[in-house]
Amino acid sequence: MQKFNIQSPDTTIVPLLIDKINNLTKPKGSLGRLEELAVQVGRIQQTLSPALHKPQNIIFAADHGIVKEGVSFSAPEVTAQAIPNFLKGGAGINMFCRQHGFLLKIVDCGVNYDYKDLPGLIDRKIRKGTRNYLYEAAMTPEEFDQAIGIGAEITEQIYREGTNILSFGEMGIANTSTSSIWMHYLTGIPLAQCVGAGSGLDNAGIQHKYKVLKQAVDRYKGSGEVTDILRYFGGYEMVAAIGGMLKAAELKMVIIIDGFIMTNCILAARQFYPEVLDYCIFGHCGDEYGHKMVLEYLNARPLLSLGLRLGEGTGAICAYPIIDSAIRMINEMNDFKKAAVTKYFD
Amino acid sequence: MQKFNIQSPDTTIVPLLIDKINNLTKPKGSLGRLEELAVQVGRIQQTLSPALHKPQNIIFAADHGIVKEGVSFSAPEVTAQAIPNFLKGGAGINMFCRQHGFLLKIVDCGVNYDYKDLPGLIDRKIRKGTRNYLYEAAMTPEEFDQAIGIGAEITEQIYREGTNILSFGEMGIANTSTSSIWMHYLTGIPLAQCVGAGSGLDNAGIQHKYKVLKQAVDRYKGSGEVTDILRYFGGYEMVAAIGGMLKAAELKMVIIIDGFIMTNCILAARQFYPEVLDYCIFGHCGDEYGHKMVLEYLNARPLLSLGLRLGEGTGAICAYPIIDSAIRMINEMNDFKKAAVTKYFD
Repeated sequence: MQKFNIQSPDTTIVPLLIDKINNLTKPKGSLGRLEELAVQVGRIQQTLSPALHKPQNIIFAADHGIVKEGVSFSAPEVTAQAIPNFLKGGAGINMFCRQHGFLLKIVDCGVNYDYKDLPGLIDRKIRKGTRNYLYEAAMTPEEFDQAIGIGAEITEQIYREGTNILSFGEMGIANTSTSSIWMHYLTGIPLAQCVGAGSGLDNAGIQHKYKVLKQAVDRYKGSGEVTDILRYFGGYEMVAAIGGMLKAAELKMVIIIDGFIMTNCILAARQFYPEVLDYCIFGHCGDEYGHKMVLEYLNARPLLSLGLRLGEGTGAICAYPIIDSAIRMINEMNDFKKAAVTKYFD
Repeated sequence: MQKFNIQSPDTTIVPLLIDKINNLTKPKGSLGRLEELAVQVGRIQQTLSPALHKPQNIIFAADHGIVKEGVSFSAPEVTAQAIPNFLKGGAGINMFCRQHGFLLKIVDCGVNYDYKDLPGLIDRKIRKGTRNYLYEAAMTPEEFDQAIGIGAEITEQIYREGTNILSFGEMGIANTSTSSIWMHYLTGIPLAQCVGAGSGLDNAGIQHKYKVLKQAVDRYKGSGEVTDILRYFGGYEMVAAIGGMLKAAELKMVIIIDGFIMTNCILAARQFYPEVLDYCIFGHCGDEYGHKMVLEYLNARPLLSLGLRLGEGTGAICAYPIIDSAIRMINEMNDFKKAAVTKYFD
């Protein structure tokens, strides 16, 4: 795996940011989480006047060999079918992107379909889906490095386009299964508590999914190192997201974390570089069983809790206007002196 | 008090709205609260293609005689000083309005100051602040009716301007005190559990505030009828908000409810017309002690919980993009047939 140069942002500026916020015309602390967000983004950007430029969402898409074991409620072909829908603008993520001014990049890291003539699709297909990790490693070490590299490459590209805030989304039927196994290994939480309904399994379906994943975990004979676990049970799209997150932190971009799957990707990313978390804003706690637990493990407090479980980056982008509000607050609000308002406090 | 003609919106359209949402290209139910919001707004507007037009926020401002008893952390003159700051665009609410395209109306219902030459201020001053309810009724029955009428009048005006979604905010130092007393009487929750820090009291300050309010409640010798309680302890700005909420429901507008104070205004409004709640979307659960309890009493599930306690309508407007997302979802997303995606479910 390639190296990244990730630094925790300097904290010298934090008291200056807090002082600026405390002099805005409002009772001290009365804009709650917005004030924390303004401090975080100001610290990342090392300025008292932070700004958000050209927000983008990158969707990494890939298929999963484990889908053959019936672990998902959705048909495997949905991954391949969703891509043209994203590119035509008719999916959930598209309307969020239009609403909040996000550009959208769609990256095929390993979809099990040969696309012909799909303008806009970024083709980085590693293989037509991972191998079935019930029987063998999902990807080779070389493929793991390749997926990390794809995420880093696309992220560096959008940085060069002028973006300083981004989110990652995913499309890959059966990728909550990978997420559950990663979560289990990386947090130590029992597998049964990491497995949920995904796109719509009923209780019997969840039981079956758990049995398959348990069997896969029991059969695993790898080294137990983080990289080995990630690649053995991984999805190309999820490893690409890890690469993207690490590159984004290296480039001092603000990363908005989406739902259950992306939370497990940042959980993995921090195993390599704990400082990556300083660049993350958690957008949303979804309904997938286990999401709340992994967020708590990370001491993450997501901005929203709206019962979304669509993925694609929707939970991240839905939280964007709150971050935007925080930045507007610190830049646009009057201070007490300028407004001639008696300070609410001393 | 004037009569309002408030009907609960017909529910015949609800299964049709749900059917439309279930055919959008996403797993069933995977947009969570957005789906509920789309159903609610579609039902209010009686259409499968709901739309939000010209959102506005109305701030009613007034002073409170009780402020003389030291119940607020903020100086009394802050009410009067905040108005020019609103009109100049430098307050918290202004940046939220600019961000989300809200128009802002500022209505003086009873500020303790004589403004001269303040373009944009809507002057409906009833009196320079209410009377001190530790000793006497805050307002007369006539003033109560007048305040209801002001709220109804301004709301009807913005309806005529083409608005179909609005929020109400307030500015009035000491108005969490009125809110706490109203909440106590209207929910039956003990007063001590209804009293909080307002704009920044410490524990000793909260204790003093409680003692003053308890004394006021103990001395009250009125009829105990809802209207009598509201006017005895009321604020002009809060009664105006009640009038505004009732008129908005009569005109089938969508009402976004702000924080602790506006939650107690809708608690009061529903005593007269319970159907008003069908038109309400609760924006935010704030940090004021008691807010969570009054929301639970109303079975209200606010969209956000960001620790805001600024008032002015900020908690309502901050939630607006989520409502906008819901409306975009039902209008802009492809259905399975059009997108040629295998349905996630049957």
